[in-house]
Amino acid sequence: MADRSTQAHKAPVYLKALTLRDVTDIAGVKEDIKKHMIVILRVTPLAQKDVEELRKAIEELYSYAQSIGGDIARLGEERIVLTPPDVKIWRGAYDLK
Amino acid sequence: MADRSTQAHKAPVYLKALTLRDVTDIAGVKEDIKKHMIVILRVTPLAQKDVEELRKAIEELYSYAQSIGGDIARLGEERIVLTPPDVKIWRGAYDLK
Repeated sequence: MADRSTQAHKAPVYLKALTLRDVTDIAGVKEDIKKHMIVILRVTPLAQKDVEELRKAIEELYSYAQSIGGDIARLGEERIVLTPPDVKIWRGAYDLK
Repeated sequence: MADRSTQAHKAPVYLKALTLRDVTDIAGVKEDIKKHMIVILRVTPLAQKDVEELRKAIEELYSYAQSIGGDIARLGEERIVLTPPDVKIWRGAYDLK
């Protein structure tokens, strides 16, 4: 646990691709970010089911990412990316799609 | 440079979303991975232009990722993910889309 404070990890960072099918999936996503995983979340299945639920889910994940010092960004129409505190989403001058 | 050997970084890891429009874009992608960035690459623009060039580009990036001990995976129809050596793509028992 000592490495948490230095933002340095000898163990590799994991990147996980998941699908958001239901609001109940949010808890698992938060757990993964807490475990220092990067999550690429396909949100279209929930969008097709209930746009309002998707809006709330993204809001909740956005707040969560902010609260832990992580990052969140849209990735095209289908996905969002969420990162733990030691991974930043690069926002350059070009090519953000 | 000393941190390279321990796979530990005090600086944050960056995640960058880019678009592959031409084979000449490959050099930049390799540079980013060399700089320990995670690259999410949208490949559809090149796919629409020349499928054979895309096939070669992905083969080249695949070889490159392997050669540096990084990782590479498809992300749906439109994107691929490439990681530096200290970031692994999680391949679990479920939900790889």
